[in-house]
Amino acid sequence: VQLRTAANEAIAFARRSDVRRRWVNQLAALVAIPSVSSDAAHRQDIHDAASLLRRHCDAIGLDATVFPGEQGGAPSVFAERRSRTRGPTILFYGHYDVQPPGARSVWRTPPFKPIVELGRIIGRGTSDDKGQLFAHLAAIESWIACAQTLPVGVKVWLEGEEELGSPTLPFVLDRHLARLRADGVVISDTEMMAEDVPAIVYGLRGVVSSDVHVAGPRRSVHAGRYGGAIRNPLEVAAAIITSLHRSDGRVAIDGFYDDVLPASPRERSALRASMVGDRALKAEFDVRPFGEPHFSTAERIAIRPALIVTAVWAGDAAEKAGIPRRAGARVTARIVPDQNPIRVAELIRAHVQDVTPPDVRVRVTTRAASPPVLLPTQHPIIDAAARAVTRVWGKPPPFVRSGGSIPVAGQFHSRLHAPVVLLGFGKPVDGAHAPNESLALDRFFSAIETIIQFIAECAA
Amino acid sequence: VQLRTAANEAIAFARRSDVRRRWVNQLAALVAIPSVSSDAAHRQDIHDAASLLRRHCDAIGLDATVFPGEQGGAPSVFAERRSRTRGPTILFYGHYDVQPPGARSVWRTPPFKPIVELGRIIGRGTSDDKGQLFAHLAAIESWIACAQTLPVGVKVWLEGEEELGSPTLPFVLDRHLARLRADGVVISDTEMMAEDVPAIVYGLRGVVSSDVHVAGPRRSVHAGRYGGAIRNPLEVAAAIITSLHRSDGRVAIDGFYDDVLPASPRERSALRASMVGDRALKAEFDVRPFGEPHFSTAERIAIRPALIVTAVWAGDAAEKAGIPRRAGARVTARIVPDQNPIRVAELIRAHVQDVTPPDVRVRVTTRAASPPVLLPTQHPIIDAAARAVTRVWGKPPPFVRSGGSIPVAGQFHSRLHAPVVLLGFGKPVDGAHAPNESLALDRFFSAIETIIQFIAECAA
Repeated sequence: VQLRTAANEAIAFARRSDVRRRWVNQLAALVAIPSVSSDAAHRQDIHDAASLLRRHCDAIGLDATVFPGEQGGAPSVFAERRSRTRGPTILFYGHYDVQPPGARSVWRTPPFKPIVELGRIIGRGTSDDKGQLFAHLAAIESWIACAQTLPVGVKVWLEGEEELGSPTLPFVLDRHLARLRADGVVISDTEMMAEDVPAIVYGLRGVVSSDVHVAGPRRSVHAGRYGGAIRNPLEVAAAIITSLHRSDGRVAIDGFYDDVLPASPRERSALRASMVGDRALKAEFDVRPFGEPHFSTAERIAIRPALIVTAVWAGDAAEKAGIPRRAGARVTARIVPDQNPIRVAELIRAHVQDVTPPDVRVRVTTRAASPPVLLPTQHPIIDAAARAVTRVWGKPPPFVRSGGSIPVAGQFHSRLHAPVVLLGFGKPVDGAHAPNESLALDRFFSAIETIIQFIAECAA
Repeated sequence: VQLRTAANEAIAFARRSDVRRRWVNQLAALVAIPSVSSDAAHRQDIHDAASLLRRHCDAIGLDATVFPGEQGGAPSVFAERRSRTRGPTILFYGHYDVQPPGARSVWRTPPFKPIVELGRIIGRGTSDDKGQLFAHLAAIESWIACAQTLPVGVKVWLEGEEELGSPTLPFVLDRHLARLRADGVVISDTEMMAEDVPAIVYGLRGVVSSDVHVAGPRRSVHAGRYGGAIRNPLEVAAAIITSLHRSDGRVAIDGFYDDVLPASPRERSALRASMVGDRALKAEFDVRPFGEPHFSTAERIAIRPALIVTAVWAGDAAEKAGIPRRAGARVTARIVPDQNPIRVAELIRAHVQDVTPPDVRVRVTTRAASPPVLLPTQHPIIDAAARAVTRVWGKPPPFVRSGGSIPVAGQFHSRLHAPVVLLGFGKPVDGAHAPNESLALDRFFSAIETIIQFIAECAA
């Protein structure tokens, strides 16, 4: 009863309009820092974002510190509430780095000058992941503001290189494992799948990202004066891209599907029922489904691997008038159990070398490789999360597998030996990684209440 | 004898080191204006370059004026020497617009801050075509400075949209044909082919430039969350590019070669003897020859059509993290007699539509289309050019066909009914259209002397 009263007080705090207004402003200040981890020019912004979050964690009553980057990686913010009496300790994870915004011209408002419009806050990182990590902090703040003692131990870890694939995460865990140790981990960096209730994600695809570099003439060549007499590296790159898939959508790399675990008919039908379907593709993206034959949209995303070419380049930027001196493509594999990222990277490399004409120099560099993850679906902490969702959203969360990759989830699972709850509040309409990224404030506030309830349920 | 004396005086003038130094500085001032015709942001620079050239033409003793752009096109500079007694009238053509420089990072020096280094002037447009048009003006200046009366009538026309394919040229000719009328036209906008002597180019390929636009999802899509379930417009664009050629190098578009005129064995062997060969490809570009089977490098460039993909794009600039919302490619055909540019544009469009999956929206826009040109090789004006070359370079010019396209050449040929002499002083090593474009000053001065001698030979 005492716990429920405290939870209700925290909820009431989180519904105060002055508090909500302040949170939106504080989130906006965080979004305004262009903490793009993939661009060295934003190195200082990464540090600034970490500093701001450390100060914010201190201000809400946590003891915060900045872990310096390991192996040249980005710094991260660690904070904990030391004083407590009982209950499990929960580690809240988020990442404060963001994807590059892309061309300014396709944003309706400047990506790093967040504004609130028609109930949404707009700006790079509002949904992925600054808004979601801020929901954790706001929930913790609400508890601290209302309760003498928290019903659970609280730790927060906010990293700054998730959008790079968390490359130095193993080194951070090596150094700080003891401080990060917890009885459960909550990661809010996934999408809701259903319209009206957050999902609990128990599976994530792994990722292998490779860059294919095709060498051409020593310098770019006038297309008229020599066109027809020199091999065009751009056309070679296009042929390599084309060779990656059969026309029916299957990946054409030998052995690519060898290690894919089949899912049970029961799991397949559960995923089909609760995950994004053809209608959602039409509504969100105005496209018809397309992919590996004999699988539904949900299955293509959740249980089947995919190969996606996400970028292509030729010559030097803005140079569009000749046979370029080089060309290339970024090839990303999204892999599922039991595919091995290192083996898939090797298969991609071997395929590219196999299809490249012998007189062409091609190089494949692997940028990132992380394994897929399957998490347990039954544990008191996971049950607590499900009950919290049911309280706030009026229905229990579906259990789904995501097509995305969160390397940290697998690392936490295997290194901390603790259950990892992937409870995300993003939606496709937010446009994570896309221009005009935004987050509905209504959903932001519901996320805060869900975490407040989760903290109560963990101790129940 | 009087003519020869005058010519020698003009040559002596053109060899004075103070004069040469001034010319290099004046050329540098012209190169410093970033008159990029393909970029609306440089509209003022286009006007500034035209103004500078009008003033320069006035200063050297011509009567100059600026023709305003027709149909929204760029202005051009027209200048003439009114007072004269006898001899034919020669129209000297050049273009003051330049290709975009491309990424700053691949230039060793800023593209629009020309410097002289080791005997070369470096900067965008030094070779193509500001350096070459300036050689015409320097030769004319030398004659005016030394001779009471010029042995020929002189007209100069400098256009500002050659790098766009001279799109409004027909309108300019419609309005100003009478003033442009001449007994011969000299165009210096081609390459020398041989190491040690300029060539006279009697054939040019035409050009058809088409952009292929592939539509994708309404907005770019997270590659993990949906990868495998949505068709990737970038992969469709790559497949379209790949479909354009067979693996042996032949163009795979139905009917593409239908209208190609075969060249005579005699012409083929003459071109092979005088044009760029496999050794030059190796030396200049570090590539082995590759192209349509059963033809030599020279033939692939001179007498055979080609299809070159010069650019590719996906999504929005700098956005490299998802399935892009659109993708595309720039496809350029270089065509030869008797291919018709409109028909080739239609063949490209039909092919693209044919190979695109039916559920994908694709659009083909034709940016430029100009016919190939075959010019006469015998005429007193052409003989005069050949004699001038022999005087200055010690050997007669080879007669060759270029793979490049100069739309104005065909237009002059058919509208002015005058012989067109394509006498260029560029070299592959200059890097026209490439980063670090440059022009050897030694070649620049020889070009000036060649035009001085040409003026004398026209009157001989």
